[in-house]
Amino acid sequence: MGARIAGPVVRFQGGRLSGERADAARNRLAVLRATEELLAQSGPELFSLDQVAARAGVGKGTVFRRFGNRSGLFQALLAERAARLAEAVASPGTELGPGAPPRRRLLGFLDELSDLAGRNVALFTAHERVCAQDRYADPTYVRWHRHLTGLLIELLPPGTDPEFAAHALLALFDGDLVRHVVEAGGVDRLRRSVRGYAETLLRA
Amino acid sequence: MGARIAGPVVRFQGGRLSGERADAARNRLAVLRATEELLAQSGPELFSLDQVAARAGVGKGTVFRRFGNRSGLFQALLAERAARLAEAVASPGTELGPGAPPRRRLLGFLDELSDLAGRNVALFTAHERVCAQDRYADPTYVRWHRHLTGLLIELLPPGTDPEFAAHALLALFDGDLVRHVVEAGGVDRLRRSVRGYAETLLRA
Repeated sequence: MGARIAGPVVRFQGGRLSGERADAARNRLAVLRATEELLAQSGPELFSLDQVAARAGVGKGTVFRRFGNRSGLFQALLAERAARLAEAVASPGTELGPGAPPRRRLLGFLDELSDLAGRNVALFTAHERVCAQDRYADPTYVRWHRHLTGLLIELLPPGTDPEFAAHALLALFDGDLVRHVVEAGGVDRLRRSVRGYAETLLRA
Repeated sequence: MGARIAGPVVRFQGGRLSGERADAARNRLAVLRATEELLAQSGPELFSLDQVAARAGVGKGTVFRRFGNRSGLFQALLAERAARLAEAVASPGTELGPGAPPRRRLLGFLDELSDLAGRNVALFTAHERVCAQDRYADPTYVRWHRHLTGLLIELLPPGTDPEFAAHALLALFDGDLVRHVVEAGGVDRLRRSVRGYAETLLRA
């Protein structure tokens, strides 16, 4: 359900999705900003689509048709936040993109994900809490998981299940764990801990 | 709050905690069974202490005084389920206990935890969902984390943060991830995946 905007290929162009009309893009961004503000004020279960619509200044029908439910809102907000990372991963010639050595791509991706998670703890927590089991079908999660699996096939010794290892690395970004680490030592501490752990997993 | 029974040292003796009166033990077990049954029927947020008390045939005050809230109930139920594992880990001369090689102790512990999580998915999910950030102060989690950290200090190369690595290994037992893996391949698949992953992490 929901998150029709967050299909496997999301292209943000000047804040608009490809093919999206300017007024639709404005509404989408207003709804996502309203979601974010409500998330900062209260827990993920404690606000309604009505409140999101009122705050964004759009009709409830607009929110409902476009996002479906809170789960769809959190998926779309996560996809928006992850857009820059998705672009970097897909761009040849960059440190994270196709053609770079797999080890560097993987460690660089985890660095970026540490920053993203550390700066969006409430969103990561809400996404897990509300999407729960559906998380494994969420387009952003699926994209991250596929990317990591592809790199881990090249990097891990035979006999290790790369799909499970990819889930295991993404589990480092559990919202509660991220909050626990960031509260103790900031986003830097999270980035260092994740990198050290991944380097141990990848050592030749 | 809650979970007064689940202090760092829990000793189960014939179903009774040390120093616990027989009637108190009966009530505790009835409350835990009722919690479990309600958990199997509905989600962790969808039942009240009143319902637990009614089903267990005890007063609401008994549940409230002893467990505090749902979080306390889930902590106590997890502690009960984990009691056998806690005993094995503390018993010298067993495969998991003091004196056995650290690598074997760690892999054996993860095997047992895979079984425990795979057979108690609803409880693991409820515990995370309801205890959330408090999970890191939960006596059972703290005990598991301390045990793994102690073993990882001996097993991981210098420069890896053993405390973070212990959180990372426990994150493999995220309720949603466990459900995802078990639905695809059963508890056996979970055990094999966790073991393969841990062996990769620990390889010399």
